[in-house]
Amino acid sequence: MKGNMKAKKVAVIGASGYSGEELVRLLLYHPHAELVAVTSRQNAGQTLAQVFPKFASHPKSKTLRFSEPNAERLAKQADVVFLALPHGVAAEYAVPLLDAGCGVIDLSADFRLKSAEIYQEFYAHDHPAPDLLKKAVYGLPEIYREQIKKASLVASPGCYPTSILLPLIPLLKAGLVKTTGIIADSLSGVSGAGRKAEADYLFCECNESVRPYGVPKHRHLSEIEEQLSLSLAADTKVILQFTPHLIPVNRGILTTLYLAPEKHFSTTAEMNALNEQISTCYTTAYGKEPFVRLLEGKALPDTKNVVGTNVIEIAWRLDLRTGRLVVMSAEDNLVKGASGQAVQSLNLLCGFPETAGLI
Amino acid sequence: MKGNMKAKKVAVIGASGYSGEELVRLLLYHPHAELVAVTSRQNAGQTLAQVFPKFASHPKSKTLRFSEPNAERLAKQADVVFLALPHGVAAEYAVPLLDAGCGVIDLSADFRLKSAEIYQEFYAHDHPAPDLLKKAVYGLPEIYREQIKKASLVASPGCYPTSILLPLIPLLKAGLVKTTGIIADSLSGVSGAGRKAEADYLFCECNESVRPYGVPKHRHLSEIEEQLSLSLAADTKVILQFTPHLIPVNRGILTTLYLAPEKHFSTTAEMNALNEQISTCYTTAYGKEPFVRLLEGKALPDTKNVVGTNVIEIAWRLDLRTGRLVVMSAEDNLVKGASGQAVQSLNLLCGFPETAGLI
Amino acid sequence: MKGNMKAKKVAVIGASGYSGEELVRLLLYHPHAELVAVTSRQNAGQTLAQVFPKFASHPKSKTLRFSEPNAERLAKQADVVFLALPHGVAAEYAVPLLDAGCGVIDLSADFRLKSAEIYQEFYAHDHPAPDLLKKAVYGLPEIYREQIKKASLVASPGCYPTSILLPLIPLLKAGLVKTTGIIADSLSGVSGAGRKAEADYLFCECNESVRPYGVPKHRHLSEIEEQLSLSLAADTKVILQFTPHLIPVNRGILTTLYLAPEKHFSTTAEMNALNEQISTCYTTAYGKEPFVRLLEGKALPDTKNVVGTNVIEIAWRLDLRTGRLVVMSAEDNLVKGASGQAVQSLNLLCGFPETAGLI
Amino acid sequence: MKGNMKAKKVAVIGASGYSGEELVRLLLYHPHAELVAVTSRQNAGQTLAQVFPKFASHPKSKTLRFSEPNAERLAKQADVVFLALPHGVAAEYAVPLLDAGCGVIDLSADFRLKSAEIYQEFYAHDHPAPDLLKKAVYGLPEIYREQIKKASLVASPGCYPTSILLPLIPLLKAGLVKTTGIIADSLSGVSGAGRKAEADYLFCECNESVRPYGVPKHRHLSEIEEQLSLSLAADTKVILQFTPHLIPVNRGILTTLYLAPEKHFSTTAEMNALNEQISTCYTTAYGKEPFVRLLEGKALPDTKNVVGTNVIEIAWRLDLRTGRLVVMSAEDNLVKGASGQAVQSLNLLCGFPETAGLI
Repeated sequence: MKGNMKAKKVAVIGASGYSGEELVRLLLYHPHAELVAVTSRQNAGQTLAQVFPKFASHPKSKTLRFSEPNAERLAKQADVVFLALPHGVAAEYAVPLLDAGCGVIDLSADFRLKSAEIYQEFYAHDHPAPDLLKKAVYGLPEIYREQIKKASLVASPGCYPTSILLPLIPLLKAGLVKTTGIIADSLSGVSGAGRKAEADYLFCECNESVRPYGVPKHRHLSEIEEQLSLSLAADTKVILQFTPHLIPVNRGILTTLYLAPEKHFSTTAEMNALNEQISTCYTTAYGKEPFVRLLEGKALPDTKNVVGTNVIEIAWRLDLRTGRLVVMSAEDNLVKGASGQAVQSLNLLCGFPETAGLI
Repeated sequence: MKGNMKAKKVAVIGASGYSGEELVRLLLYHPHAELVAVTSRQNAGQTLAQVFPKFASHPKSKTLRFSEPNAERLAKQADVVFLALPHGVAAEYAVPLLDAGCGVIDLSADFRLKSAEIYQEFYAHDHPAPDLLKKAVYGLPEIYREQIKKASLVASPGCYPTSILLPLIPLLKAGLVKTTGIIADSLSGVSGAGRKAEADYLFCECNESVRPYGVPKHRHLSEIEEQLSLSLAADTKVILQFTPHLIPVNRGILTTLYLAPEKHFSTTAEMNALNEQISTCYTTAYGKEPFVRLLEGKALPDTKNVVGTNVIEIAWRLDLRTGRLVVMSAEDNLVKGASGQAVQSLNLLCGFPETAGLI
Repeated sequence: MKGNMKAKKVAVIGASGYSGEELVRLLLYHPHAELVAVTSRQNAGQTLAQVFPKFASHPKSKTLRFSEPNAERLAKQADVVFLALPHGVAAEYAVPLLDAGCGVIDLSADFRLKSAEIYQEFYAHDHPAPDLLKKAVYGLPEIYREQIKKASLVASPGCYPTSILLPLIPLLKAGLVKTTGIIADSLSGVSGAGRKAEADYLFCECNESVRPYGVPKHRHLSEIEEQLSLSLAADTKVILQFTPHLIPVNRGILTTLYLAPEKHFSTTAEMNALNEQISTCYTTAYGKEPFVRLLEGKALPDTKNVVGTNVIEIAWRLDLRTGRLVVMSAEDNLVKGASGQAVQSLNLLCGFPETAGLI
Repeated sequence: MKGNMKAKKVAVIGASGYSGEELVRLLLYHPHAELVAVTSRQNAGQTLAQVFPKFASHPKSKTLRFSEPNAERLAKQADVVFLALPHGVAAEYAVPLLDAGCGVIDLSADFRLKSAEIYQEFYAHDHPAPDLLKKAVYGLPEIYREQIKKASLVASPGCYPTSILLPLIPLLKAGLVKTTGIIADSLSGVSGAGRKAEADYLFCECNESVRPYGVPKHRHLSEIEEQLSLSLAADTKVILQFTPHLIPVNRGILTTLYLAPEKHFSTTAEMNALNEQISTCYTTAYGKEPFVRLLEGKALPDTKNVVGTNVIEIAWRLDLRTGRLVVMSAEDNLVKGASGQAVQSLNLLCGFPETAGLI
């Protein structure tokens, strides 16, 4: 099953949550990666097949057992280690793993920000390893491809940020939309809340329910705004309005962005001209990206078209009545919004084809 | 089962769709209304119990049969007739019923607008009875209570408009928010699409799917903007950005409104002061309304708290970071957004207690 | 809102679970019962409106507060007390409440069996109050109506047992089906598992999942078999095959029963004759029951027709190919299968009309 | 992407239904098959990407266009043709394709039976090509592997039959269970009804609903009983009781079988001995099958563990109280129950590894 490339040994710390499980799925079938260890305090000692019956058809599932997380041991076993842990906990493993020369791809929020102060503001505790913030590369491959290739510590983006940054950055960079007044309205499937046994996420509390939450200052704002403010995007301080909603699907994020074009349009001709510019901007940015699908014609994003894949769908509409630009995106929060994107970073980091194990 | 008030005889034309079915449910158990006729071309001849097994426990369900719609006959049978028909078709029945002295409560879009031109623009066909537009009262009881009491033709509002107008009108009327730049982002259950056998609304096409549609010019914009522009609200031409999304629940609309306060706030104290004003505005407008629930504390709207009821939940948050006001509402699209609100109008029209049959 | 009957004061111990919440809903709007107390350890001090926003439109929701459960105090406040507690805990409250002269309607399994030994076998702990077992009446009104009227302690049946016993008892009593080889295959919505914060009942674990559980010896077998073996039914020891399945709906139980008719049939004429006998048997048993709906023609039970109501739907088919009788039932597990049925018992116990507060 | 095996050209007639879409998915990524044509009357002229946006990331999706079905042309284009058409229509294409030397894998019911009379009885029209019935091989690879390798016409089994036959055949063949009194109770996701725009399968009619249908004589009984009666299984006429139910999930079938062991057991020791025999029987039959997962320990089948895969899960329990054997299976109705199994047959037919494109 391995290709002719030299396989890398990989491990997943925190493999019993939804992102961890999805990482395991992708890594089990990855042509150039060999999954050598999975850890989980609660499942230590059990095989992959016992904890996740759906993996039982893979030959490795009967022999690979969950172990207690132990950075020292894992550093000896693996070339690259994925951290699928809650924020605040990841640093504890990242430091010794990096010291031992491992590549680290962290799916938590711990290394996504450059500023320990902003981390403290949004996550309500001191940053556990502020020295590493400089070292970390933000793992959005379409934007930071070259940096990821050389990184030792990749901070894989959050699910909402991915769905917002990918459609926004090219427009801001090209100066096509104003950097002020941006609104992101997002709808997320319940797996985004993680596999936590909390009453709020019980089936009967989510099914036949639609609700906003975390209004108006969700934690993901910190990394969205930091990224948007960088020179790669707006190159000025961006403040975002962001409203996440919980929707009764397992997976998927649908984001609707409300933007003000820099150029005013009041006729159909002006609108069409601007539309052409936006189209060119997106095609230039993403036309050759394997995981960005720019929708054409009347098509609008639909999470069911991307669930289970590493693809983000993007469509947009100019509104002659309001003068606004509406951009919509759809992704699988567990794949492009988490584990798939982390594997994309692995591929870059290891020199594998970027789509390996993802198509 | 009847109260001491003189009962009114009522009929439902087009009783086999979702709104019609919900009307039947409410009218069967209404203390002062007697359901004397239900019509449906496709189900003519069948009893209520045969078409809707869930009504089979009501004694009338075995004797009341669907008939072909016939305005002349219905005018003799009923005091008030509900029209639960597609737009463009309702006028055909409204004219003879009104001529015969019946009260008419129309759930279609046909009489919601004052302007036949705007109707033509948004519905793509000439208005079938433009003379009636002046006569019709927009059936939003919290806003037009007195007019509904004296109306002969009530145009019951659309589901999205109800979820947008009720939270917005008091703020605009009080001059608390700007009349420009308003954005309404709405999420609707699938029953909003009606009981149409179209592939887009099959279970497998909607389940595990979240998607926008009708971007950027949904038909409901016409009535929303007309209502917002009236003197009861903004008293100036309002243009709205509106994005509806389809969500895999049977019922419920969740709307998130993005608004710019007239008063700038940049400190917590200023924000709290403005918050107080908004609170007063809403309490004054709706504090005694039986079907408007202003949420307090940390609570946010959730469609599961209103499904099956005629209640709309409203909550709001000021955002110190963006200077914006975010208002959220939740309603049952088939009850407060359609049939319940129509029964509320019936109660006003007939002099019944406004909550009769709705609590 | 009260009718002319003397209202009874009622309390609910354990009002924060799904059955408790449903009891509260029914009792708030009951014409002859006054809900005077609700208890919940975790919500003590909060109002009904705070814990259950959907009740916030009821005037009492802002004043009625959850209290700690205290049998002595509740015995002074209420005429009848509902226990919506886990098995093993209910007895602790039942004993003092009964001693104080209260009526007790218990929704747990604690008083459903006559035999403390069988209780121990199925519930794996000693019965906490075996002396009360004789005193308790099994609260299945269609079968034990007269006994419930005179009862002080009602053991309200389990959700699965209700869906199995109501269709089966008349057939066994009439000797139409064999008492051996009975199979009950049941499908239940997730609310049947209660409002427990366990990972198995998270949205993502139940949505897009269908699974059997508790095979082959589910606890409910104990009360099903005891009831079927009584003289009111088979009058001989009945052993049942029962397989429950978890289905991704909030509410509803669909049971399919596989039965062997006593009378062999091998021609259509013989089948029709037997069908007539079964029809007569059911009509005699349930033709006038307000909450049993015998389906006619081609209709088959569907949980969506009974959800939110106290109705059980029953249909049957004889199979000429196999010689078997297939009986199907549908109910709302939280209403006819729990709280609605408990209120039906309240009505009998207090001399209210049996349908009061339930239609 | 092609392996070193000589690729076969394949086509799908009727590629716009759910099975057709799933076939396209599997064939697009199959290492040894090249999808050269897809047909659909309603979508003729459109690209794969236009009709199924979720395939838009595959390079072929922009160039491969749906065509009108034309057997003559397809016979020239493809080595093997899949028919994903309604019953009664498939034969029209099968005859000319076979005459032209193509391999044909039919997913309809048209060639599953040996008897044209039984076809007429269950499908209510004459068989369109009775001469082909002898020629067709029933495409259940675990049972007919050698025959499929040499077949020119494969009749791929129905979704329910697969879920029933695979668990049953080894037990019958080994004489471990009685051939009489067998009951199969099945629960299916809504995609089983196909992509038909019928009101019964609208989201709001299926969501929050659980219902039986087709009781007691579903069409699939014909092929189930024929297969069970063959010498490979019971070798005597088997009559089955079968009840399908519709469940609100997109995909998945869960079947519960109620069986009478030939050997009576009344002690735990006897039960354990029989259990050992059943275990041996299943391990012998399926221990090395790549797509049959025999569950161990306390695990029970769950459709969410097999959705999207070609795996069928099987578990069983002996019941000391009833003396019965309960066997449960779970599969994806569109994969192992339809398109995945058809691809498994393609692999056998063409000499590819049996798991090619399926893992």
